[in-house]
Amino acid sequence: MMLTLKPGTSKAQLDAISKKIEDLGFSPHITHGKEVTVIGVIGENAILTRDIFEAMDAVEAVTPISKPYKLVSREFKKDNTVIHLSHGVQVGAEHVIVMAGPCSVDTKERLLYTAEAVRAAGAKVLRGGAFKPRTSPYAFQGHGEKALRFLAEAGKLTKMPVITEVMNVNDVKLVEEYADVIQIGARNVQNFDLLKAVGKAKKPVLLKRGLATTIQEWLMSAEYIMTNGNYNLMLCERGIRTFETATRFTLDLNAIPVIRHLSHLPIIIDPSHGVGVREYIPSLAKAAVAAGADGLIIEVHPKPEEALSDGPQSLLPDQFAKLMAELRSIALAVGRAI
Amino acid sequence: MMLTLKPGTSKAQLDAISKKIEDLGFSPHITHGKEVTVIGVIGENAILTRDIFEAMDAVEAVTPISKPYKLVSREFKKDNTVIHLSHGVQVGAEHVIVMAGPCSVDTKERLLYTAEAVRAAGAKVLRGGAFKPRTSPYAFQGHGEKALRFLAEAGKLTKMPVITEVMNVNDVKLVEEYADVIQIGARNVQNFDLLKAVGKAKKPVLLKRGLATTIQEWLMSAEYIMTNGNYNLMLCERGIRTFETATRFTLDLNAIPVIRHLSHLPIIIDPSHGVGVREYIPSLAKAAVAAGADGLIIEVHPKPEEALSDGPQSLLPDQFAKLMAELRSIALAVGRAI
Amino acid sequence: MMLTLKPGTSKAQLDAISKKIEDLGFSPHITHGKEVTVIGVIGENAILTRDIFEAMDAVEAVTPISKPYKLVSREFKKDNTVIHLSHGVQVGAEHVIVMAGPCSVDTKERLLYTAEAVRAAGAKVLRGGAFKPRTSPYAFQGHGEKALRFLAEAGKLTKMPVITEVMNVNDVKLVEEYADVIQIGARNVQNFDLLKAVGKAKKPVLLKRGLATTIQEWLMSAEYIMTNGNYNLMLCERGIRTFETATRFTLDLNAIPVIRHLSHLPIIIDPSHGVGVREYIPSLAKAAVAAGADGLIIEVHPKPEEALSDGPQSLLPDQFAKLMAELRSIALAVGRAI
Amino acid sequence: MMLTLKPGTSKAQLDAISKKIEDLGFSPHITHGKEVTVIGVIGENAILTRDIFEAMDAVEAVTPISKPYKLVSREFKKDNTVIHLSHGVQVGAEHVIVMAGPCSVDTKERLLYTAEAVRAAGAKVLRGGAFKPRTSPYAFQGHGEKALRFLAEAGKLTKMPVITEVMNVNDVKLVEEYADVIQIGARNVQNFDLLKAVGKAKKPVLLKRGLATTIQEWLMSAEYIMTNGNYNLMLCERGIRTFETATRFTLDLNAIPVIRHLSHLPIIIDPSHGVGVREYIPSLAKAAVAAGADGLIIEVHPKPEEALSDGPQSLLPDQFAKLMAELRSIALAVGRAI
Repeated sequence: MMLTLKPGTSKAQLDAISKKIEDLGFSPHITHGKEVTVIGVIGENAILTRDIFEAMDAVEAVTPISKPYKLVSREFKKDNTVIHLSHGVQVGAEHVIVMAGPCSVDTKERLLYTAEAVRAAGAKVLRGGAFKPRTSPYAFQGHGEKALRFLAEAGKLTKMPVITEVMNVNDVKLVEEYADVIQIGARNVQNFDLLKAVGKAKKPVLLKRGLATTIQEWLMSAEYIMTNGNYNLMLCERGIRTFETATRFTLDLNAIPVIRHLSHLPIIIDPSHGVGVREYIPSLAKAAVAAGADGLIIEVHPKPEEALSDGPQSLLPDQFAKLMAELRSIALAVGRAI
Repeated sequence: MMLTLKPGTSKAQLDAISKKIEDLGFSPHITHGKEVTVIGVIGENAILTRDIFEAMDAVEAVTPISKPYKLVSREFKKDNTVIHLSHGVQVGAEHVIVMAGPCSVDTKERLLYTAEAVRAAGAKVLRGGAFKPRTSPYAFQGHGEKALRFLAEAGKLTKMPVITEVMNVNDVKLVEEYADVIQIGARNVQNFDLLKAVGKAKKPVLLKRGLATTIQEWLMSAEYIMTNGNYNLMLCERGIRTFETATRFTLDLNAIPVIRHLSHLPIIIDPSHGVGVREYIPSLAKAAVAAGADGLIIEVHPKPEEALSDGPQSLLPDQFAKLMAELRSIALAVGRAI
Repeated sequence: MMLTLKPGTSKAQLDAISKKIEDLGFSPHITHGKEVTVIGVIGENAILTRDIFEAMDAVEAVTPISKPYKLVSREFKKDNTVIHLSHGVQVGAEHVIVMAGPCSVDTKERLLYTAEAVRAAGAKVLRGGAFKPRTSPYAFQGHGEKALRFLAEAGKLTKMPVITEVMNVNDVKLVEEYADVIQIGARNVQNFDLLKAVGKAKKPVLLKRGLATTIQEWLMSAEYIMTNGNYNLMLCERGIRTFETATRFTLDLNAIPVIRHLSHLPIIIDPSHGVGVREYIPSLAKAAVAAGADGLIIEVHPKPEEALSDGPQSLLPDQFAKLMAELRSIALAVGRAI
Repeated sequence: MMLTLKPGTSKAQLDAISKKIEDLGFSPHITHGKEVTVIGVIGENAILTRDIFEAMDAVEAVTPISKPYKLVSREFKKDNTVIHLSHGVQVGAEHVIVMAGPCSVDTKERLLYTAEAVRAAGAKVLRGGAFKPRTSPYAFQGHGEKALRFLAEAGKLTKMPVITEVMNVNDVKLVEEYADVIQIGARNVQNFDLLKAVGKAKKPVLLKRGLATTIQEWLMSAEYIMTNGNYNLMLCERGIRTFETATRFTLDLNAIPVIRHLSHLPIIIDPSHGVGVREYIPSLAKAAVAAGADGLIIEVHPKPEEALSDGPQSLLPDQFAKLMAELRSIALAVGRAI
C-alpha cells in the first residue's frame, strides 16, 4: 500500500505517519518525488489498515498495490479449478458446459419435456427456478419446494445435475438437499450472510456478478465463499447495468479474459439475462464460447408466452438445438468441445 | 400498457394478439399509425402480463403506461407521510431530521461521547452499525448484539431514537428489539426476503437505494415493505455507481425532487457514503437540505483514524457542529427548521 | 408517438391537445385506459414535434413509437450494405475484414515494416493515426500531413487501402486525398459539423461509437452522414464507459446483434481501444467474429514501448499473426472467411 | 509515477526498467514489498512517459501520483479565479451569477421579452443558442448569425453580457465578435481542435463537462484552453450519463466541492440540461447554490410549447422569478448574494 502525501506536509506529520506504520507492525518506505512524497507501507495485509491512513489529514490518497483477495486468485492456485458434478460432468475442464432449462419451474410435465429437449441438444446441466427474486412484489415468486422436487426428479430422469437459486440463508439446507449446484443471484452478490452460508454448504456454488459489481468486488464476494470452506465455486457474468437501453443489461464479455487472468475459477456466461432479448442471445452465446468461457447458462421454454417469468428471453427448444450445433463448431475452433 | 407491433404484422397475428388480450380479461384498443400499429391493453394491472406479450414474435416493444407500484405512490396518498419516533421526533414533517453517529459502534464510552456531541449540535437520531456489510471477508464485521445494546443505552441516555442496519432475516427480531428505526442497506435493496421480513416488523424502516437501483426499482422494493404491512417507511439516497472516480459514489440529489413527485414517503440523504470524502460532505449536506430533503444521515467519529470502518468519511464532532449551524440557515431559507 | 396524460386531465385540456395535434397536420387517436388516457399522434414524422407536447403541463410522458432515423435503418434497406474499397476489399460481404497497424504513424520505415507484417498475417486494410485526439494537451498529437503521406505510400506498397482519423472540418479534404476510409473517432461522434463534412466527402467513412453514446444516438449520428449524401458508411464499436475499471472501457459486443437487427450498415469492432490491455485483446477479437462482426480494427506495433501512443494495447506482429490464425477458424465456424 | 511489477519479475528485468528510467532522465526509486516490488519514477513530468512503462511485460500497473494537469490546478493558483465581464459582472466573486434565456434564439421580439423578464428577476447574463448541437439531423439546428445578432442586440438593450455556444473552429471568430462568453457544449468537451481555437480567443470561455467525462478529463480539456493562452475560463456541470432514466441526465452536484478542491476556476451549474424536467429544476438550482456554485445557467421561455428546442425543460418567466427569490435566500444563507 502506498500513501501519497498532500503537498506541504511537514516533517512532523511525516514522522507521525511513519511512527503509526511501525506501531501497526509494518515498515515505512519513503520516496521523495519532485512534487509529492509517497510512503510505502510494507508488510503482510497492510491493505487492511487502509482506512486508518485514509482518515489522516496529511494523506492525499491511498493506493493499494497487492490484491485484496487471496484464495480466489491465480497467484494462490496456478491451475484452473475443475468442478466435478454428478453424471460425470466437469466444469472448468475441456468441455464447455451448457446449462439450460426454464427460468421458473412451472408444471412437472413441461419441465420434463424441456429437460429432455435440452438434453437431446447437448445441454449437460438442467437449470430451473424455485425461488425467484422479482423486482415487483406483485410478480410470481416461484413454486418453492415443490419446484425443487420437480427439478430433482427431472434431473434424475434425464441424467443431468441440476442448478437452482437460493435467496435466503434459511433455505440453503433445503436447496442443498435437492440441487447439485447452488446459485447465488446477481441481487445477492453482496448478501454477505448468504455468501457465508453457502460457503459452509457441501454442494458447488455458482456466484453471479451483480448489476453494478466491479470484477474486484465480485472476486471478494467469491473470497467470502472460499474462506468459509467451499472451494467448488464458479463465477457467472450475467450483464451489468450501463446507460444503454437497447439491451436489458450489457453482457460484459470482457470479464472472460479478465477473470481468466486474475483467478483460477471457472467462468460461466448467462446471455439470457445479460441481453434480455431472444433474438440477440445466439450471437452472444457464440461470442462467449469464442472468448473462452467454461460454460453457458441459457433459458429455454417450449411456450415462452406462457412462461411464469422471463418469457421474452427464453429460446424455443428448436432455436436452442440450432444454437447448440453452432456452438459446437465454435468450441472446436478454440480447441474445446461441447 | 401499449404493444407496438413489428412492421409487416399480418391481420391474423393482430387478431391472435387481440384474442389473447381478451382471454386475459382486458380490452384491446388498436391504433393504426403511418408506420406502425399500436395496441393498448386496457384493464387493471395489465402491466403484470407484460412478459406474455413481450415473448410474442409480432410484438416489437411493450410500453408500460401506468406505474408498477401503488402503495408508495403519490396517487395512492396525496399527503406526505410523517413518521413518529420516540422522544417526539417526526420524520417528514417541518423539521429536517439529522441522524448522526459512528459508522460502526466500537466502545461504549466512545459511542456515548459521540452521541452527546451530536445531540448537542442538534442531531435528533443516533446512528451506529452493529452488523456491517463489508466488501472484504477480512474486514471488521461489526460487534453484533453487544453493539445493539450499547446503542440502545446511548439512545436512552441522550434521549434520541436509534437507527441501525439489519442484514439477515434471522436478525430482524433482535434488531427490532433494540432499535427505533431498522435500516436496510444499499446492498440489500433487492434482498426480497429481507424486505418482506421488515415489512412485517413493528418498527419504522429506512430503505437505502442500491448502487445501481433505478428510482423505479427502489420504489418497487419499498412496495415490498408496504405490501407486507409496514407503512412507516423512509427512503434514503446514498450514492449511485457511475463512471466517476473522483468521489466514492455519485450522490444523486436529483432523487429528491423525483421522489417528492412520485411518492409520499420521506426522503433522507446520506452524504457520508454518497461522496465518501470528508471534506466534500458539508457541501453536499447543504445541497440536500436546499433541495428539499426530509433528513440527513451523517457519520461522525471523534478519532476517525481509529474508527473500525469508514474513518475517511467521518466528520469530527466540531466539524459536525459547524455544519449543523450552516444547515440551520439553509433550512430556514427553504422554510423549514432543524 | 403516444402521449400519456396526467391523471386528472380535464376534458378541456384533452380537447386543446387534440386541436394542437390537428393544427400540426396529424390525427389524434385517444385511448381511455383504466388509470390513464393515452393519445396517439398519427402522421409522418410526428416524432419531430415531440418537444411541443412534452412541454405541455397535462402531458406526463411522450413515448416515441417509430424510430427517429430512416436511411440507416433496416426498414429503409433490407440487404446488408457492402462497401467496396481499393484492391478489391469489400466490407460487409462474406469476408471478415481485419484492419491493422500502429496507433500513431511514427517513422516511415517502421510503418512499412508493420504494414508488411500485418499484410502477411492476413490484414486487408492498414490503419494508422496522423491526427491524434489526446486527453492531455501535453501528449503527442500526431505527425499530421507527413503521417498521411507515409500511410498512403505504405498502403500503395503493400496493396492495402488505408484508414485514418479526421478531427477537424478543415482537414477533411486533406484526409480524403490520402485515405481510403475516413475515420470519425469516438470523441467526435456528436461533432455534428464534422459529420456533415464527411457526409459530403467522396470516401467511405467509419464512424466510431462514443464512450457514452446509446446505440440509437449513434445511428442518428450515422443518419447525419447519410442525409448529407455519403452512403458508404460503416459503424465501429470501441468500448463504452461503465463503472468497471479492470478494463480501460467495456467493449460492448451486444452492439453486434443489435446493429445487425436495426441497420443494414456493416459493423466493425475495435478490441484494442475497447479493452485497452494487450493480453485481453485476442479473447475479445475472437468473440467479435463469433458474434457476427464484419470486421476488426486492431493496433499492432513492433516496439510497443517506443510507440508514440497506445503502446500498452498494441499487439506485437507475431502475437497478431497467431491471433489471425485463430480468427480464421472462428470465421469458418460461423460460415465466413478472413 | 509508481510502477508495480508483476510477481516473479527477475533481477535482470528490474535492472532493465531502472536503466530505462535513467535513460529518460528520471531517477528510479525501488521499494521491495512483502508481495510485490514498486518502482517510483522520480522527476518532472514523469507521467508523460506512462505508456512506455505500461507497455512493458514486467509492469503490472502504473499509478500516477502527481496530477496530469497544471494550469487549472489549485496548486498552480491558490486564489479563486474571478472573470470580469461587461456591465460589471464578475464570475467567481461574491455574487452567484445567474445566466438565463431561451435554449434557442427564435424571434427578436420574443428574445427581448425574455431578456427583460430574466433581467428583472435578477439574471446577470443572457443565454441563447445560435448554433445548436442536435442529436437528430432532422431537428432545428439554430438560426446562426442572425441569432447572434439578435442576442448581441438584446444584451445591449438589457445591459447584460451574453453567452452562446460555438460548435465549429470556423465559427469561433464570428461568435467572439457577438458574444461576451463563448460556450463549449458537452458534446465538444474533447473536440481538441475547438478547445485550442477558443484557447486563442480573446473572450472568456464556459466549458461544459461531457456526458461521460470524468472530472480529471474535464480539467485536462480545460488545460487545453489555458495552455493556448485563455485564462478566463469557467467550468459548467450539466449532467452526466448514468443508468437512471427518471431524469434526462444525472446532474452531478458532487462536482462542486471536487472542482473547488482541485481547481481555482469558477464552477457553474446547468440544472436545465442536467435534469431535463421543468418541475425538478428549482430543487436542483437551490441545491447548487447551497453547495457553493459560482453561478447557474437556466433555460427560460415564455411559451415552452413553441420553443424551437428544449421546451420541456424551460421555465416560464414567472416560475423563474419565483425561483430567483428562493435562490436569494439560499445565497444569503451561505454568505453570498445574487
